[in-house]
Amino acid sequence: MDERQFVAYLKDKFPFRRGLGIGDDASAVRVGRYFQLVSTDILIEDIHFRLEDFSPAGLAEKSLAVNVSDIAAMGGQAQYFYLDLGFPDRLCPADLRAFFSGLGRAAKKWHVELAGGDYSRSKKMVIAITIVGQGKKPVLRSGARPGDWIAITGPTGESALGLKQLLAGEKDSPFIRCHKRPVPQCEKGLRLAQYAHAMIDVSDGLLLDLSRLLHASGVGAEIDYKKLPVSPRLRRLCRQKNYPEKELVLAGGEDYQLLFAVSPRQESRLRQTGMGYHLIGKITRGRGLRVLEKGRQLKISRLGFDHFVNAGGKKKKNEDHN
Amino acid sequence: MDERQFVAYLKDKFPFRRGLGIGDDASAVRVGRYFQLVSTDILIEDIHFRLEDFSPAGLAEKSLAVNVSDIAAMGGQAQYFYLDLGFPDRLCPADLRAFFSGLGRAAKKWHVELAGGDYSRSKKMVIAITIVGQGKKPVLRSGARPGDWIAITGPTGESALGLKQLLAGEKDSPFIRCHKRPVPQCEKGLRLAQYAHAMIDVSDGLLLDLSRLLHASGVGAEIDYKKLPVSPRLRRLCRQKNYPEKELVLAGGEDYQLLFAVSPRQESRLRQTGMGYHLIGKITRGRGLRVLEKGRQLKISRLGFDHFVNAGGKKKKNEDHN
Repeated sequence: MDERQFVAYLKDKFPFRRGLGIGDDASAVRVGRYFQLVSTDILIEDIHFRLEDFSPAGLAEKSLAVNVSDIAAMGGQAQYFYLDLGFPDRLCPADLRAFFSGLGRAAKKWHVELAGGDYSRSKKMVIAITIVGQGKKPVLRSGARPGDWIAITGPTGESALGLKQLLAGEKDSPFIRCHKRPVPQCEKGLRLAQYAHAMIDVSDGLLLDLSRLLHASGVGAEIDYKKLPVSPRLRRLCRQKNYPEKELVLAGGEDYQLLFAVSPRQESRLRQTGMGYHLIGKITRGRGLRVLEKGRQLKISRLGFDHFVNAGGKKKKNEDHN
Repeated sequence: MDERQFVAYLKDKFPFRRGLGIGDDASAVRVGRYFQLVSTDILIEDIHFRLEDFSPAGLAEKSLAVNVSDIAAMGGQAQYFYLDLGFPDRLCPADLRAFFSGLGRAAKKWHVELAGGDYSRSKKMVIAITIVGQGKKPVLRSGARPGDWIAITGPTGESALGLKQLLAGEKDSPFIRCHKRPVPQCEKGLRLAQYAHAMIDVSDGLLLDLSRLLHASGVGAEIDYKKLPVSPRLRRLCRQKNYPEKELVLAGGEDYQLLFAVSPRQESRLRQTGMGYHLIGKITRGRGLRVLEKGRQLKISRLGFDHFVNAGGKKKKNEDHN
């Protein structure tokens, strides 16, 4: 059973009658004039992170960031969250306080409140956050239509390059900081709720997350590699060190940029808002996903970090259940 | 920092402006004419359970049961839930399917739906469930008043005795079944919402959970041991095997009975509904908790399973955050 089959199995086995359940970045249930959006993420030591790479405060911040990003990816506003924490005995009380200090700072930054949780000892650290938000109209993965532009809010690949450096023993770099302190695109997500047909946040790699959006929408896409926002510093370092730029940009995960489909008409309205984003391709009627460079099709060996099939770990957030 | 200090630290650090946050069985946020109740629990292999003692399906059922119980303890109706699952590589796909089959059956039994989640590989199994429910008026821990009756919906100690037997290598007994398949008191919880001043579910031991209710309410209590519902089979086995009956009944955890405070006037109305419960003591003005037997005060060495301070594992659900 691969990830897609697993999601299909769960969607079939657990129909959600109250609203939108398994299969998107968050669930959505109508509550009065709004939709309540709920998303949950589990991060486990030595699967999703190494304790040596993060301070307790930094880990708390990143854990909250990826959840806030899921609400942004639905075009919603994050409001409050619940924390299940498995905390290792080998850490000290000061580490626990540092964790909650970091959590407090991050919560303030993203205007969310801690509403509850549970605490346990644990051998490996486990952080499971469930976040609640609201939106006027959730932007699903399934709304893309042939002829839509595909756009992204910012560059990809920097976090994956940072992880590469961390694993190679480096301690600090602009890329490592991207990896450790992802920035959820809250304001852009809220604005895009008024314009986008479909949206997802890039957590497991641009192509893998795009393929999820395409699959949900029953469409295909053509991407122009030259249109992708690749940062000059990433391009430079890849050239210097012989790193695989295209693989990092197309398949590197944890960028937390928003990837969206928008009609040409809406796009011209969106452009007038001055919000930064990049048009990178088009939604096509045919089902395939093609990446072109100077008119030639790139051969794609790996879409991204599919944790369900690979030896990785984490699956795409909520792909399984939400 | 012990559990109470930890909760106080978190309540102070994370004020929840939208409703009731840290410090009860669930958070409560007003949504229209109702309160939305949310509770979360993390269960970790070899901290809260041993895989050898449970089938995957049984584990799914128990994990959901303890969450449903938290909503019952607020006088609410559980509606839907989110599952974060860390699943060990050493288990096989059939185990994963068995887990979800058990989850499906349990969800049907308690009329709740799976609304989303996240999945990861993990070394030790981790099950973190966040459950959403609603209630007309949440029954908090903090509402007990001097002169109230203290009552409980059923016997305690059987689950703890079952755990004792499991750890001693026994495979099956009525007590082991109590331990493995706790029954959340859903209907009683809903009914008690109309009568009780304060309520909590007994997950970590009668006296420990009672002391939490007393602390939250700023009152004390006097319990009559002779009034406690001790099952004849537990009493018999304790006599035969020289097991410490009082410790099991007073401090054994995971009974998931509802413990509540009710005014004498409301209690006489409650009695007329025919609902089963046992009056076991009275709320007192003074802060202490005394257990009497034939007029003499019992010496209490251990209130229950305080996982935060002890070598145990899990803290009282949401005591830390909700």
